Amino acid sequence: MPAQVIVTVDVVLLTLKDERLQVALMKRPQDPFKGELALPGGYVHAEDDADVAAAAYRVLRDKMKLRPPYLEQLGSFSGARRDPRGWSISVCHLALVTPDVIADTHWFPADKLPRLAFDHASLVAAAATRVRNKSSYSALPAYLLPETFTLSELQTIYSQVLGEALEKSSFRRKLRDLDFLEEIPGAFKGGKQRPAQLYRLKGMAVFDRTI
Amino acid sequence: MPAQVIVTVDVVLLTLKDERLQVALMKRPQDPFKGELALPGGYVHAEDDADVAAAAYRVLRDKMKLRPPYLEQLGSFSGARRDPRGWSISVCHLALVTPDVIADTHWFPADKLPRLAFDHASLVAAAATRVRNKSSYSALPAYLLPETFTLSELQTIYSQVLGEALEKSSFRRKLRDLDFLEEIPGAFKGGKQRPAQLYRLKGMAVFDRTI
Repeated sequence: MPAQVIVTVDVVLLTLKDERLQVALMKRPQDPFKGELALPGGYVHAEDDADVAAAAYRVLRDKMKLRPPYLEQLGSFSGARRDPRGWSISVCHLALVTPDVIADTHWFPADKLPRLAFDHASLVAAAATRVRNKSSYSALPAYLLPETFTLSELQTIYSQVLGEALEKSSFRRKLRDLDFLEEIPGAFKGGKQRPAQLYRLKGMAVFDRTI
Repeated sequence: MPAQVIVTVDVVLLTLKDERLQVALMKRPQDPFKGELALPGGYVHAEDDADVAAAAYRVLRDKMKLRPPYLEQLGSFSGARRDPRGWSISVCHLALVTPDVIADTHWFPADKLPRLAFDHASLVAAAATRVRNKSSYSALPAYLLPETFTLSELQTIYSQVLGEALEKSSFRRKLRDLDFLEEIPGAFKGGKQRPAQLYRLKGMAVFDRTI
């Protein structure tokens, strides 16, 4: 058996707030990096966790009292120098929530971070890149909205995540191609003049959680 | 410090041979699963490996005497039941080589696997899916060819990886959009009648290795 490796999970929990992608950060209660801002994370508990995704859900439950509707594995960050305690691996997860979630945390713009503990700034950058790339061909940004939404609310969210204006008719054509929405029969939003149809994600629009 | 976790890397080494995506498998020399077929893999060596990608390169060098031109992290597979020795995590990598590489191994069709040790069949399936998905918008399949190639050789490789016939003019338009090729000045292949221009990947057409 080779030398012990420290095995942790970290979660880049993102929301869209004030039209910007924002990340949840917490002050570390203990060393290393005591008092500094960091992602919610912790050791894998071999005795409790079914796998690393379960460890990520447990960390969010224990530290932030929430269960995100969307969580995926982003990738592993590893090496001798990222944690002063020794050679470590962090399996980093990406999670999305709506901004109204009540979490024991503070939100910070993902593209204008304060100083973070460990290599967590790299983890946030990788997660933001993944969200932007994946948004151009998937339902991902819809997880930043409440369960039901109008098409124009959805377009606004995509536009904010992608950082570019979107043209209405080509956006709607793309939605039809991707085919992840379903109309909620008889559910509308807005005034009597032109109420807007409400939609939700189809049951199967949930992504791979492990890869 | 919580209970120890076994930390390993495994590599799904793929090539295109006989027009099929094939994976390199080795007989395990020791328990667990002694004598069964498995992916090349091993423990992370905290004292030697800079990170998990370095561990994957070391495993390929030691066990197969090769260094693949393309390697990326696929994702981590973890839990209590995948390895009889205890709770384990395998950071799985995906690597591509040309079929002429001399490796101490045997190739097996990725979509018609024999029985494999551990959960390695799942790792191969995930890698094949990643290659197929990524091939539709990237230079990935070009790593299955020698360093220089003609456009029609490239089209054949894409078509075999994607498992569908491709139309020549739309394939060439896509190549122009993706912009990862460069002409090799004065280098051609084939007879005197209609020699075909040779191409190679641009220097920057190398992918993220860690995410």
